[in-house]
Amino acid sequence: MASTDYKFEGWLGQSPDSVNGKMVWGEFEPKPWEETDVDIKVSHCGICGSDLHTLRSGWGPTMYPCCVGHEIVGTVVRVGSRVTHLKVGDRAGVGAQSDSCRDCDACNNGRENYCQNRHVGTYNGKYANGGKSYGGYSTYNRAPANFVVKIPSGISSADAAPMLCGGVTTYAPLKHHGAGPGKTVGIIGLGGLGHFGVMWAKALGADKVVVISRSSAKKEDAFKMGATDFIATAEDPDWAKKADSTIDLIVCTVSDTNMPVQDYLRLLKFDGTFVQVGLPDDGFPTFQQMPLIFKRVKITGSLIGSPNDIREMFDLAVEKGVKPWIKEVPMKDANQALLDFEKGVPRYRFVLANEPEVKAGL
Amino acid sequence: MASTDYKFEGWLGQSPDSVNGKMVWGEFEPKPWEETDVDIKVSHCGICGSDLHTLRSGWGPTMYPCCVGHEIVGTVVRVGSRVTHLKVGDRAGVGAQSDSCRDCDACNNGRENYCQNRHVGTYNGKYANGGKSYGGYSTYNRAPANFVVKIPSGISSADAAPMLCGGVTTYAPLKHHGAGPGKTVGIIGLGGLGHFGVMWAKALGADKVVVISRSSAKKEDAFKMGATDFIATAEDPDWAKKADSTIDLIVCTVSDTNMPVQDYLRLLKFDGTFVQVGLPDDGFPTFQQMPLIFKRVKITGSLIGSPNDIREMFDLAVEKGVKPWIKEVPMKDANQALLDFEKGVPRYRFVLANEPEVKAGL
Repeated sequence: MASTDYKFEGWLGQSPDSVNGKMVWGEFEPKPWEETDVDIKVSHCGICGSDLHTLRSGWGPTMYPCCVGHEIVGTVVRVGSRVTHLKVGDRAGVGAQSDSCRDCDACNNGRENYCQNRHVGTYNGKYANGGKSYGGYSTYNRAPANFVVKIPSGISSADAAPMLCGGVTTYAPLKHHGAGPGKTVGIIGLGGLGHFGVMWAKALGADKVVVISRSSAKKEDAFKMGATDFIATAEDPDWAKKADSTIDLIVCTVSDTNMPVQDYLRLLKFDGTFVQVGLPDDGFPTFQQMPLIFKRVKITGSLIGSPNDIREMFDLAVEKGVKPWIKEVPMKDANQALLDFEKGVPRYRFVLANEPEVKAGL
Repeated sequence: MASTDYKFEGWLGQSPDSVNGKMVWGEFEPKPWEETDVDIKVSHCGICGSDLHTLRSGWGPTMYPCCVGHEIVGTVVRVGSRVTHLKVGDRAGVGAQSDSCRDCDACNNGRENYCQNRHVGTYNGKYANGGKSYGGYSTYNRAPANFVVKIPSGISSADAAPMLCGGVTTYAPLKHHGAGPGKTVGIIGLGGLGHFGVMWAKALGADKVVVISRSSAKKEDAFKMGATDFIATAEDPDWAKKADSTIDLIVCTVSDTNMPVQDYLRLLKFDGTFVQVGLPDDGFPTFQQMPLIFKRVKITGSLIGSPNDIREMFDLAVEKGVKPWIKEVPMKDANQALLDFEKGVPRYRFVLANEPEVKAGL
């Protein structure tokens, strides 16, 4: 296929201040084309906390200009000659990772997200061919096809978008650590990640799903999502005592050095597992080792998910009818959406929509 | 059998100062006899760091007078009518735990060491019948038979003693977390616990056994014990970088809030496990979550071992000829032995010996 006759344009951050409603619409240069790549005409892109972190250089210096957004869904418009699993016209998506070395033990075993040699983020990354990665607050996206996943017909594009990062970040650890029948799962924090955690835990068949939040403001929502129990830590000083040793697996979506990790660990049963997801800026809070030693509990973490995890998650979503709670926002209002995101407005995920595609029902 | 015609005497601590060479020999009152109990005439008792902690009330107030020592070996001299697995004359031992509820999920599944209802330490504990537990720096010991393990003929009494706490504390996590062929095991700290860790890892068939110590002072010893690699952290600023992602399972026998846990975690491979053993006075050091998230490593702990673990460990010791590095010290010199222990003299475990039994070759 010949070179593109479309322009890569998007919301560009030029400095840390761009996060304060100051991204500017403009053109960007996608990575040099390779025959293992795919171009997608973006219809939707979820807003993830990482977008704000990167815009403000929160995880180290960002390579400005950057275009964030790594929950990208759209229509395939160009397919490299060496790509076999996608064709022009397919609906497909890209999550938070868009390349890896693809030659290590992790990559050869479907765990590209844990590749230690090359982990290219879908934005603010550098490809082996020298190109820079740009995200989905844009008209078009180019990414190595290995990280582009076809979206099943049972999931709308708007719903699929936030699953690509927020969804799989909670799905992968729940699946890996055996959330399912006979298990009680705890989800700490009911935001974009947490709301997915509750729904996946239910879809995977967990006996009980306990939401641990500061206040009871989101209690009703939690039950609608599938929670069976709700703990409001700021409203009951005895919460940890009351729920002592009741949970098999906790996925913690909160990243706060001051979180009461000691109390969280207390909730775990013998041999229970505490999984930290997301990327905090600071260290893990200090804690007494007692629960590790006396109850053999494990503290671990989890990083997004692999393309295979995403495919599995989509299948589960179709099978169990999992539907994220989203609000669509026109792409033109991305700056305002970030300001609202920062204020905690989303219930529970914003999805930017390029209007023509929305009208076409994609 | 009639009541005892022997006296329970031992080295008694009367105050925190007793740890400074000031234990006093005297009589003590064992727990009121029950028909599930066993009396042992003590031939040997290992010296464990916990003994010193307890003498000085390091883990909270000690119930003085106390007689410490929980690596107790001797000859069974009295057996309760409800005891079936031991008879008078057997060589048997008691480790760090001497009772549990024996009616919970943990107890019913051979994990008495993780009983959450009643964990009676072999000294400084209270039995359900109101009796107090006294340890093995003594002539006789009385304990519930469930926690008294017969010692196979292939192991000498002196060698068996330190296995009962120091040995099983490292054996249990190595076994549980799959140390064996194909695995690289790391042991942090080469003291009483660590030297067992190296020998068990080798006996279990681990491909490599890496000792991580501050200096190379014990390097030669480590290789004799079965280590294949040695890292002296104070002698090579690049140690963590050089050994990055090379170890499957680390057992950390060091309890120090200032230990370089971030570097230790760096040594783990993807999905690797870090097991903390022993009981630190302070919290676990704070650490960056990156290795948890990017390499899915697990941090966990382990608490001594169950009677079943002890039996398994003894079998392995016989099969593989594992022989601890001990120094026998006459029971009369217990005070001096504690002072030497505190100075780090043991290479690698002191065992107190009641001389008549030693002469008899038991």
